[in-house]
Amino acid sequence: MDKGRVLLAVTGFHPQRWHELLSTEREVVTEPDGPADPSIAYAVVWKQRPNLLSRLPNLKVIFSIGAGVDHIFADQTIPDVPIVRVVADNLSRHMTEYIVWRVLDHHRQGLLFRGQQAKKVWREPTQRTAEDVSVGIMGLGNLGRAAASALHALGFRLNGWSRREQKMEGVTTFHGEAGLIPFLNATDILVVLLPLTPATRGIVNHSLLKHLRKRNALGGSVLINAGRGRLQKDADILRALDDGTLKEASLDVFEVEPLPKTSPLWGHPKVFVTPHAAATSDPNHLVPIMLRQMNAFERGEKLENVVDREAGY
Amino acid sequence: MDKGRVLLAVTGFHPQRWHELLSTEREVVTEPDGPADPSIAYAVVWKQRPNLLSRLPNLKVIFSIGAGVDHIFADQTIPDVPIVRVVADNLSRHMTEYIVWRVLDHHRQGLLFRGQQAKKVWREPTQRTAEDVSVGIMGLGNLGRAAASALHALGFRLNGWSRREQKMEGVTTFHGEAGLIPFLNATDILVVLLPLTPATRGIVNHSLLKHLRKRNALGGSVLINAGRGRLQKDADILRALDDGTLKEASLDVFEVEPLPKTSPLWGHPKVFVTPHAAATSDPNHLVPIMLRQMNAFERGEKLENVVDREAGY
Repeated sequence: MDKGRVLLAVTGFHPQRWHELLSTEREVVTEPDGPADPSIAYAVVWKQRPNLLSRLPNLKVIFSIGAGVDHIFADQTIPDVPIVRVVADNLSRHMTEYIVWRVLDHHRQGLLFRGQQAKKVWREPTQRTAEDVSVGIMGLGNLGRAAASALHALGFRLNGWSRREQKMEGVTTFHGEAGLIPFLNATDILVVLLPLTPATRGIVNHSLLKHLRKRNALGGSVLINAGRGRLQKDADILRALDDGTLKEASLDVFEVEPLPKTSPLWGHPKVFVTPHAAATSDPNHLVPIMLRQMNAFERGEKLENVVDREAGY
Repeated sequence: MDKGRVLLAVTGFHPQRWHELLSTEREVVTEPDGPADPSIAYAVVWKQRPNLLSRLPNLKVIFSIGAGVDHIFADQTIPDVPIVRVVADNLSRHMTEYIVWRVLDHHRQGLLFRGQQAKKVWREPTQRTAEDVSVGIMGLGNLGRAAASALHALGFRLNGWSRREQKMEGVTTFHGEAGLIPFLNATDILVVLLPLTPATRGIVNHSLLKHLRKRNALGGSVLINAGRGRLQKDADILRALDDGTLKEASLDVFEVEPLPKTSPLWGHPKVFVTPHAAATSDPNHLVPIMLRQMNAFERGEKLENVVDREAGY
């Protein structure tokens, strides 16, 4: 089998480094040759233009740049070939850093201390211990499990929720619709790392948030979303912050990105905003993994981390 | 041997809870009975009044409230009995949380993101990976080792410096005067957890800070002091921040505490101030350990965590 050509189909950023690195082993194009280019075997994509992939008669595999694949399914015409997700230590380490950082900032009262410093107030607040704080992680995939394990090592209590039943050492797990409210009722800090699918769109809304544990060691419940913006309802988060359902939030993702200047989230005193920066796909780490998979596929080996189309992740 | 009475000799805060918990097993007084009270066998102290302990003819053991014992040695007349330091999982967990929180806040560019949020700027900065960042811990006692181990698990490179040679899995160790500059030269984020002794007073000064690695993944060097304020020269830290020797600092301790309102550290944009709150001695955890040691001592067993008077910690 010949070395298939690679279509690099990216919108929203300039994929120069991806192009360079893929080109070390493969011929890379950014546009098909003509309306039904037969030379392209692989597509490496981030928010590809709709109807682009459907025109490739010999496409064998789609590789996603990024842990999520919702950006691929936004195009309803994608051909029925395997879609491979990114699973890389580097990405999961970055996400773990972000989650541990944000959990500690809420747990260790960063907002309070920054406020005290601005007023030159020397006052030591009561500091609860991590053992009295339950972090609940929605989504126990590769990223959720890595974050859970790091938080557990720091002494936090851990809950996990996933669509299908999962077991994990040191984590109290819940699953499915029946497990959701018990999971929330036992959670002080909610960390959202779910995939975005038709089933999860808008799941982080006011009626979900109100089930979090409010009378707790932290003096309120906290939301951290580092998954996808459309998992949440921005307006519901604002309402929850203002009516006391939530104490604080760290948001890396938003319904519309970049977050519009008109959004009250930017200036909300209880919200920490990052620009979808929790864990970035690094071509230096990811391209070698993709090239290795292409070579293995051409030797007839099995692809790894293939998306379940029915589940949508 | 009778159950000895306990003198609770504390200044600077109200030790009500310590009194309650010690009283569950021992008779507790806050003042000796007369000028040479023979009934007191133990003293539980925090910044005791000078010349108080020297007047107790039958004092057997001094217990420090807190990991450091410099507050005890401030009194030059303390009798020659064993001094027991606090070593408690609870205290070291709190300190580890604080150190991991501050390291991650500097590593993950908290200051930059808070600045961007204030201006509603959506821009993703380059984010280096923890593997490219070296954290150097000065002081490899109980607290330093726990912090090193947690940071290592998150992927950071670890250096450690101590007065005497120490070995630790995953940590490149340096020791003594000869090891200090090589240690600093290999360090991006300096974490100070040294005991305060005549040998360490003022050690964190401008000439030390200038040996830190400035041309690094973080774009500058960072100081975190959660040890004792008199380890540092406040004025040198300000100078180092202003001349580019330091990029940012997180300070939990200061030469004078409470930090005076006139200190420029309060309002410095690159400094994060906490009010000596990194790890607080919790009587619920510490009193049972002290009572257990008193009982063991009276059965003729060996005391644990006894201070080396010559070293001063």
